[in-house]
Amino acid sequence: MTKVNAYAAYDAKTALKPFDFERGELNPHHIQIDILFSGVCHSDLHTARAEWGPTIYPLVPGHEIVGRVVSIGSHVTKFKVGDLAGVGCFVDSCRECQSCKEGEEQYCENGMTGTYNSYERGTEKPTYGGYSTSINVDESYAVHVSDKLPLEGVAPLLCAGITTYSPLRHLNVGKGHKVAVLGLGGLGHMAVKFAASFGAEVTMLSTSPSKQADAEKLGAHHFVLITDPAQLEAVKGSFDFIINTISAQHEYGTYLNLLRKNGTMVVVGIPETPSVAPAFALIGKRRSIMGSMIGGIKETQEMLDYCAEHNIVSDVEIIDMNYINEAYERMLKSDVKYRFVIDIASLKN
Amino acid sequence: MTKVNAYAAYDAKTALKPFDFERGELNPHHIQIDILFSGVCHSDLHTARAEWGPTIYPLVPGHEIVGRVVSIGSHVTKFKVGDLAGVGCFVDSCRECQSCKEGEEQYCENGMTGTYNSYERGTEKPTYGGYSTSINVDESYAVHVSDKLPLEGVAPLLCAGITTYSPLRHLNVGKGHKVAVLGLGGLGHMAVKFAASFGAEVTMLSTSPSKQADAEKLGAHHFVLITDPAQLEAVKGSFDFIINTISAQHEYGTYLNLLRKNGTMVVVGIPETPSVAPAFALIGKRRSIMGSMIGGIKETQEMLDYCAEHNIVSDVEIIDMNYINEAYERMLKSDVKYRFVIDIASLKN
Repeated sequence: MTKVNAYAAYDAKTALKPFDFERGELNPHHIQIDILFSGVCHSDLHTARAEWGPTIYPLVPGHEIVGRVVSIGSHVTKFKVGDLAGVGCFVDSCRECQSCKEGEEQYCENGMTGTYNSYERGTEKPTYGGYSTSINVDESYAVHVSDKLPLEGVAPLLCAGITTYSPLRHLNVGKGHKVAVLGLGGLGHMAVKFAASFGAEVTMLSTSPSKQADAEKLGAHHFVLITDPAQLEAVKGSFDFIINTISAQHEYGTYLNLLRKNGTMVVVGIPETPSVAPAFALIGKRRSIMGSMIGGIKETQEMLDYCAEHNIVSDVEIIDMNYINEAYERMLKSDVKYRFVIDIASLKN
Repeated sequence: MTKVNAYAAYDAKTALKPFDFERGELNPHHIQIDILFSGVCHSDLHTARAEWGPTIYPLVPGHEIVGRVVSIGSHVTKFKVGDLAGVGCFVDSCRECQSCKEGEEQYCENGMTGTYNSYERGTEKPTYGGYSTSINVDESYAVHVSDKLPLEGVAPLLCAGITTYSPLRHLNVGKGHKVAVLGLGGLGHMAVKFAASFGAEVTMLSTSPSKQADAEKLGAHHFVLITDPAQLEAVKGSFDFIINTISAQHEYGTYLNLLRKNGTMVVVGIPETPSVAPAFALIGKRRSIMGSMIGGIKETQEMLDYCAEHNIVSDVEIIDMNYINEAYERMLKSDVKYRFVIDIASLKN
């Protein structure tokens, strides 16, 4: 049993506070990870505040976890003590359904086990996430992390990274494609980096002129201020793909009209109020809207290896654990470039 | 010049009435078709009542036209006098854009010329549709019609037929696929026939238990009463494709949830109030919504040939021209199995 320091939401209304608990005995297939960095995702906030459905309190958020293996179970073969390891949005799944067999555990037909706000499979023991000093996880649900990259920039790849990498790969996005990225936040900045890295011509769609220079620094070739009707009109019917990362309320029609024939808008953000999808905008050019959710373990490993090879990380602002409530407020105002990452050392003293 | 008897809407509010006009001189590339049957599409009604935008009055609707070639221009090579011919939703397009070059004139980037409610290309002469005794059309925008099939059942293939055939072909729907058809009207009954003919396992989704026997007669293998939550729950996550033909107000989430991973809902109906597409339903299984609009000339010909070979026609109720206003009222109540078709002989006396 390992005593763990953590931060938890105790209810939907109050600030996150310290919380201590014990991780269970190490299962023969589990590895114990000493957590070094934990990214701060919008989902953490939504779940802490029970905005997406019921929350199991106390809730320890965090599903962008990077750390070092400090102990391994007797049957573990994939990791050894001292390895770097990452954990993303889920820590288990049924392992038997078609999706699990296809390595797309995120779409497990019996429901994946979330890294937080779930119960350990077959038990009534809640899962606790990465705002904590240590985590035990089945080796099949952990990924290897290269030591070539700064670890704080790797943590957000476990959610923001794979969420944008996976649909771009699924749709074979690359050279010759025009890709627009809607929204420049945690997901958006990774979408720009990946799409540009895959050889696509990337346009940033943003409401804020101040983001132009940043978008270009991230790899965007063009910038469109979507509050300017003339700029929108100029790119009408021009994109093969739009990666829509907006989770605030918006309607899809304006952006669908920017797609060319057979174009696809990938939705990765979840607005609280469902968006409207005008049939005319879809039908007129055989356009599609496709949803996509994180990625499977195999693809997450592939993405991390790609990032190590191509020197891709998330741009982050490192914070101490006790800054988390202020970070949430700033995240709500999109006041972060582009991901807060908790230095878990600040939880250990 | 040919004097033409027709029926027209003179404004958005009053009933259609007789209207006489002259078709222009026969252009060297045009064929003159003596119209035999003209299908009655929901779009006719929407346009007559200016529900989809401005309408050019007087409006002669009708874009499901079958007739016989009675005269040909000097440069015509594809048709000869005496041939059967069909005309669908458009009679011209720019012929230069990528879509036109790809034989998908319906997505013409410079705008196709509608069979009605458009202007003849480069002129201010309105186009008049199939509620008329005769039409002149460029041979490149007419299709050959087999004499093997009853012509009244062929007319609706020019819109209802190709609108459902095209997305099923685009998505390679066939053996091994589970296809649901939402809504049993003009489009829905053709979607059932085509999907079944292509080898798919077809489920009719309907709000009306009385349609079960009819759906099965059309080729559906299963029937789900969508007003019954238990029946909906039983098919959750089970379909590869849904052909959504509903043009009444509805939300997409309920039906998206019936799709399996990577499933696609094809939207061919245009509700007046845009539908809501909840991101959760899209993201949770990487589902898509795709719009699709009629089909190009080449594919329309392919569809008609397929129908002749496989003995597929629309189920129709033949009406006289002067019944059109009553037919519109009945169409609004879905009181037709499944398409009204005007016997144009009734206009000729």
